[in-house]
Parts: sequence; structure tokens; C-alpha cells
Amino acid sequence: MTLEDKLLKIKAFALDIDGVITDGSVLVSDNGSPLRNFNEKDGFALRMAATHDYPLAVITGGSLGVVKHRMTQYGVKEEDVYMHATNKIEQFADFCKKYGLEAEEVMYMGDDIPDLAVIIAAGVGVAPADACPEVLEAADFVTPCAGGRGVVRMAIEKVMKIQGKWVFNVEKYSGMF
Amino acid sequence: MTLEDKLLKIKAFALDIDGVITDGSVLVSDNGSPLRNFNEKDGFALRMAATHDYPLAVITGGSLGVVKHRMTQYGVKEEDVYMHATNKIEQFADFCKKYGLEAEEVMYMGDDIPDLAVIIAAGVGVAPADACPEVLEAADFVTPCAGGRGVVRMAIEKVMKIQGKWVFNVEKYSGMF
Amino acid sequence: MTLEDKLLKIKAFALDIDGVITDGSVLVSDNGSPLRNFNEKDGFALRMAATHDYPLAVITGGSLGVVKHRMTQYGVKEEDVYMHATNKIEQFADFCKKYGLEAEEVMYMGDDIPDLAVIIAAGVGVAPADACPEVLEAADFVTPCAGGRGVVRMAIEKVMKIQGKWVFNVEKYSGMF
Amino acid sequence: MTLEDKLLKIKAFALDIDGVITDGSVLVSDNGSPLRNFNEKDGFALRMAATHDYPLAVITGGSLGVVKHRMTQYGVKEEDVYMHATNKIEQFADFCKKYGLEAEEVMYMGDDIPDLAVIIAAGVGVAPADACPEVLEAADFVTPCAGGRGVVRMAIEKVMKIQGKWVFNVEKYSGMF
Repeated sequence: MTLEDKLLKIKAFALDIDGVITDGSVLVSDNGSPLRNFNEKDGFALRMAATHDYPLAVITGGSLGVVKHRMTQYGVKEEDVYMHATNKIEQFADFCKKYGLEAEEVMYMGDDIPDLAVIIAAGVGVAPADACPEVLEAADFVTPCAGGRGVVRMAIEKVMKIQGKWVFNVEKYSGMF
Repeated sequence: MTLEDKLLKIKAFALDIDGVITDGSVLVSDNGSPLRNFNEKDGFALRMAATHDYPLAVITGGSLGVVKHRMTQYGVKEEDVYMHATNKIEQFADFCKKYGLEAEEVMYMGDDIPDLAVIIAAGVGVAPADACPEVLEAADFVTPCAGGRGVVRMAIEKVMKIQGKWVFNVEKYSGMF
Repeated sequence: MTLEDKLLKIKAFALDIDGVITDGSVLVSDNGSPLRNFNEKDGFALRMAATHDYPLAVITGGSLGVVKHRMTQYGVKEEDVYMHATNKIEQFADFCKKYGLEAEEVMYMGDDIPDLAVIIAAGVGVAPADACPEVLEAADFVTPCAGGRGVVRMAIEKVMKIQGKWVFNVEKYSGMF
Repeated sequence: MTLEDKLLKIKAFALDIDGVITDGSVLVSDNGSPLRNFNEKDGFALRMAATHDYPLAVITGGSLGVVKHRMTQYGVKEEDVYMHATNKIEQFADFCKKYGLEAEEVMYMGDDIPDLAVIIAAGVGVAPADACPEVLEAADFVTPCAGGRGVVRMAIEKVMKIQGKWVFNVEKYSGMF
């Protein structure tokens, strides 16, 4: 099956946080909680996917409230933000079951060893350019950009374009001038 | 009309925030409000434009007080910071009307789909090197640098140089030594 | 002795903080304590090394609580986080003595002049691509990436792979679909 | 006079903050004061210069307490941190007078239009690779790295090496193993 065939089957998106929607860095200090770096272009793509009713999931080993909060702003349902994930394939299976999805109907984006099983199981496994070697090898698609530099945007855009859903009406305002 | 002809007509500047004057990233944590990354070289150019009486506008989908505060420090008038912009072409039209400007007399800088209509309508549409493909294609001018790395500086400097207004007197102190 | 021979002898890891596990930058403001940038891929490698019982040490001239806290989360024992290190070779000797290690059995990662003596003394001295010239010249191994961009991950992975310990079981979940 | 001749005459260092010792970015949020990005390799060089009794000055248009605090940690005397500098050549002249220095005996590092007069007046004007075109043209020496990526380190190291003062004794600990 070609990558194009696989992309046409995708009905949902699931993703890791650190190193995928962020660049993997965590800013820490003696006071306050850690800071993570989200990108507004990724957020736009997630909101577009939500608008077109693709189920969205986050599967992360972390547990920070800010991740849940931010991802729900981007259109992920609160109950589909899986935190404390020590065995990600189980959360992935739960997400598939909840929405009646086959694994091959879900795109998963991950960058490190804990993502490897899901990268393999998912219909399309997506790796950032700076993912670990094992994930790079197992992925169906490696984005030209590194984690935090538009991975989620590129992956979602790729699916929605091939499915004819990445369409915007910019003509409707042409009469304003 | 050549780019040079278009640049000579520019009388005002309008810009998006995320991905244009910032690199599009937003640093978030469990406590405190999100952090955005401004660049002092961009700030210098905005202040120069303000000094030379070019009207300045910010048109952003966001709504943070810090954006308004920072931009007014750079010389943008408080009433020309348009926040919560869901349909940017309307705010752009309002800004033009307020200052009696034709759309072709305004340079607009934007990087993503919500900016597309204004990029097309404006006299000179400017895109950062890492803007989305649709904006890159529609723009009159793509800066060699990515968002947050001097886009606003380069764009304003380009206009002010071609109009003979990017001039500084460094000779007046030559007698101090 | 080849680099491979040296890597096979490594039984423990020691590292500097600024410019090695971070990119050397420190974010400071008028309020709050300085922020430092850790990378989750480095953290994963440290946890793997800890799981495989390699002794781990941090030797830093700094003294922030956050460094100690973060490094213990990555599997470094609290008593092996050496702070206020003005003469790093002494802390390195103390760490070796504590675990009955020869200097040639320890990999040390450092980037600047204060690390130079330990880079020379250690079995394998590792330098980030952007280390100072003196450290680059003295190191046994220079990572292709700069400080804070995966130096610790690459160095630990290199040792554990050559020693056959960088192995993960991703097959066990294959029956879930 | 060759660059080498000019470097041999340098007896003191003066520098701008934003875009020189930082990368020019300022992280701002709705709460708390702005964050600036310092680099520990630059700090090391400043401390070395202070140890060898080179007078050090900071001349900045800004006014944040953190800049003064950080720079004094790096060995700059509190009274030599010039803030609110609207006409930098005056502060530069004051610094020269205070230490009985000729302008040609001072190295100055700056990146933007407000630095231009001092870049020209100083014995060696140093510009980061991403300085504005006017400063790049006026500078005696352009560092291969951009602001915040080691500019201060490279500039100070260049002077101290050519003057035979960038020397470290790493042999004294060789007997510890």
C-alpha cells in the first residue's frame, strides 16, 4: 500500500507532546512550574481537524495541567488527553475502541522509544526529523522539520489536503475594497 | 507594477503577531500567563516608522494584554491594536478607513491562513520564510528570515530605505574624541 | 586504543550542566529565578542508564535547586549532584572513589575550560559541537549536535548500543490489534 | 593598521546587551517582568577579562535591574553598567575618561543603529553576524556567530589570545589518578 493510500484511510489523529508538538525542551527554574513551547501553526491545524470532526487524542507520559488545558483549546476533548501513559499502546487501543476506529485509520505522531509500538501499529506513523533512529526507521512519514517546528501542522495538512478538506474561502471579502 | 513601485506607495504598516513579530511559539506552564518572544530589532524599526508618522496597526486573533502593552511601547497607538480578530479583513478595512488609506497604500505582514485575505488585499503582502504555503504564494515579498527573526525589521526597512527615510546621523559625535 | 575499545570500558557517566544538557543559555528576569532548558530526549537516556545501573554524576559550578531536582528525576542520586564545583577534577575523583571506578571507566561530557581537566582525565571525554576550541581538541568524541540538542542522549546511547544494552521490546503489544 | 595591531592595543571592553550578549529576543507575558537570554560561555569570558583587570562596561538603552545584576555577577562593576543610554557615545566617552583610556584602546560590541557611533569611535568595533547592515559595514570584526550565540566570548578570547592572556593550567591535576 502506498503512503497516499494510507493517508486516504486516516479518520483520526493521535500525538505525543514532548518533541512532537514541542521541540522536546522543558524550561525549569527554582520557582514556578516547567514551561513548554507550543506553536500556533500546529494549533491552527488541530482546530481545523476538530472542525472537520476528526477525533483527536494526546498520549503523553507527562502529567501537567497545562498540556491538557492547551490541547483542549486546540480542539482535543478533555477525555482524549491521556496523561501518565507508561504503555502508550494501551491508551492508543482505548482511543480506537472509543471511536470505533481501526488502528490503520489513525495517524500517530511520536519521536522517541515510548512511541515506537504506536508508530508501528498506527495506519500512518509520523516522525519529526529529529526523532530517535528507531522511530525514524519505523515511521511511514518523516517531516522535513524537527519537533516543535510544525510537525503537527505538516502531518494534519497532508491528510486533509489529500482528502480535499484543506480548503479556505478567501474570495468572499473581495468586495470590501 | 513592480515591487519597487508598490513599495514607493506604502504609507502605513499593519501586522499579525504570532509567527510574524514572534516565531509563532508560545511558552506555557501550569502557573502564570503564556510567554511570547519579541525581538528588539523589530521594535527599533516600528519606533522609526512611528517617528516618521507612518500609521501602524496590529491585527491578531489573540487577546493578551502583553501584546497591546508591548506594541504600544513600540509606537503603535492603543486603538490600532486589533485583538480577537476572527475576520482580519474587516479590521484591516477599519484601519484603512480611520486613516483615509487605500488598501494599496498599506503593507501587511502575516504568516497563516487567517492572514491570507489581507495579504492579497494589501498593497504589499509580506510573508516570513516559514509562512504557510498559501501565504507564501500570495505574498508580494517573502523575507529571507523566518518569523520572529527580523521579519518586521526587514519589511519596514525596505520601505523606508526606498522612500529615503532610513537615514541616521552618526557624524555629529565625531568631535568627541 | 580505539574509540570503540574506550567505549566498551565505560561503566559510569558524569556530566556538566550548562552547555551540555542545556544549550548554555540562562533566561533571567527582574523577578523569579533563572530558567534553564532541559531536553526530554536526554532525560530518557539518563533514565535508561540508571535502569541499567550505571552510576551517574553531575558536576557543575552552579548551585540551583532546580538542577538537583531535575537530575534526580532523571535518575541521578542526590548525593552525586556536585554543585559549587570550582575544581571539577576533585569532584570527579570523589565520584570515582565512591563507586570504585577507574577514571578510564567513566565517560565525562563538558563544554568549557573548567571541564578541560576532566575531559582529559576521563576514559571518554565528550564535547558538544559548540564546545570551546580547547575542549573540542581534547575530547575523544565530539557530538554532531550542539549543547542542549541531544548531546547526553547521543553519548549515552553510543555506549549502551556498543555494550548491547540499548534494546527495547516493542513486539509484546503486537497482539492488541 | 591591521586588525591584529588594533587588537594588541585593546585594554578594555564595552558592550551593548540586546542582540549582543543576548539574541535580541525578549520574552514577555501578562504577568512578571521580561526575560532575557544570557549565555554562560560569554559569562566565562567576561569573568576572565575581569580577573586580568580589563575595565568592563555595559552601555544599554534598557533599564532592567536584572541586566545590572547579571553583569555584575560576570565581573562588571555596578557603576560601569550604563542604562537608559539614549546617546551611547556619551556614556562611552564617560567610561574612557573614568579609566584614562583612549577610544582606540577599547573594544566595543554592538548590533544596531544606536551602537553605530561607538562602533566607529572604538579601537575595535565588533558586530554579531546578524547585526544590522550599517553596523556590519562599520565594524572592524564580524563574529561568525549571531547575537547571543557566543559573540562576547569570541571577541574577548580573540583579544586575550593575541595578548597571551588566554592561558589555563590544566596540568596541575594530572597526578590525581
